[in-house]
Amino acid sequence: MSEQHRLTIATRGRGSVEISDRISSIVKNAATIETTAGPRVNAGIAHIFIRHTSCGLAITENADPSVRRDLETLLQRWAPDADAAYQHDQEGDDDMAAHARSLLTGTSVTVPFADGRLLLGTWQGIYLFEHRTHGHQREIVVTLLGA
Amino acid sequence: MSEQHRLTIATRGRGSVEISDRISSIVKNAATIETTAGPRVNAGIAHIFIRHTSCGLAITENADPSVRRDLETLLQRWAPDADAAYQHDQEGDDDMAAHARSLLTGTSVTVPFADGRLLLGTWQGIYLFEHRTHGHQREIVVTLLGA
Amino acid sequence: MSEQHRLTIATRGRGSVEISDRISSIVKNAATIETTAGPRVNAGIAHIFIRHTSCGLAITENADPSVRRDLETLLQRWAPDADAAYQHDQEGDDDMAAHARSLLTGTSVTVPFADGRLLLGTWQGIYLFEHRTHGHQREIVVTLLGA
Repeated sequence: MSEQHRLTIATRGRGSVEISDRISSIVKNAATIETTAGPRVNAGIAHIFIRHTSCGLAITENADPSVRRDLETLLQRWAPDADAAYQHDQEGDDDMAAHARSLLTGTSVTVPFADGRLLLGTWQGIYLFEHRTHGHQREIVVTLLGA
Repeated sequence: MSEQHRLTIATRGRGSVEISDRISSIVKNAATIETTAGPRVNAGIAHIFIRHTSCGLAITENADPSVRRDLETLLQRWAPDADAAYQHDQEGDDDMAAHARSLLTGTSVTVPFADGRLLLGTWQGIYLFEHRTHGHQREIVVTLLGA
Repeated sequence: MSEQHRLTIATRGRGSVEISDRISSIVKNAATIETTAGPRVNAGIAHIFIRHTSCGLAITENADPSVRRDLETLLQRWAPDADAAYQHDQEGDDDMAAHARSLLTGTSVTVPFADGRLLLGTWQGIYLFEHRTHGHQREIVVTLLGA
């Protein structure tokens, strides 16, 4: 069985936004509420997908914010803004860099759950990485699959 | 419930081939055709897997081809052909570079669907990235899971 | 239907450990043993998730060990130990480098299976990449989903 949810997350420009709690709530509800569509989902996977090509989803360390600052430093090194080699720059210096960062971070993460809880490790958080310099409304689809 | 399909895609050497329509057709059929194996699959995820280590699958921008040309430029920078540091070069200058590009692009993508349609964003396309300089026959397994 | 398993893998410091056989055994058992929880799982996907942010999971070439040595060379280039730009270094020179390598390799892989066998290509192996210089006990969650 499966269920599907839509979320919209507002970003404030380049940087990461933790969404672990939003996903945890969906998983908790799925395990506790009987719906007319069928029995509750106790164990399985949560697939989280972002419907854009200039931001990404990734799991990384959730304790020290300097980890995510250092990841931004490396993303800037791997896919620099305004690189002279880029042909695609209609939307500005961060346009192609954002697509390249999206390739590296990916557009979905999948996390197992059981008994209403995501099975994230102690130091793992789920993050939306905004790769554009300005903020955007970002649409996410969460699909739970299991038994 | 689930269903599984095999595709073979012919590539023409390094570069990207859009496969969104191929996957969309499978999802559409699954939602409309009752099979003896069970009821139709209305909502869930499509998992797309490539059975090779020198090509990859990724979701990226589908409107301006210069995005994918710029991604090729960056992949060449990240994993150069014929790098002096490589030990593995039995199959030529692109051999190890192709494996390294495969690590960065990944071997599978997973996309949610509902009511017979992939829930891709407006500007998202699913691409097979051929990382070898010559064309190959590439095998893909598509698994639909849902309810 | 689904089933979930936990594995612990001991690593010996930076480098890759093949776990394909461990995952294959789980898939084979799922296809052959009827359980009280329901019928056997014949076809679907195996989702493999690692509960840490300083190691990763990836599929790569399984024949020539020099491929994985060359990937280590590139990972060191992409995310150098002790980079002067890092703010996060509480656990040593490999601390931030390990988190950055984890972003690039990812924390999960998903592989289709049918009739009790993973549908890996001939040259594909599933690897745990330890990104820290010292060995660790690493926890993995394997979830099978299918019909």
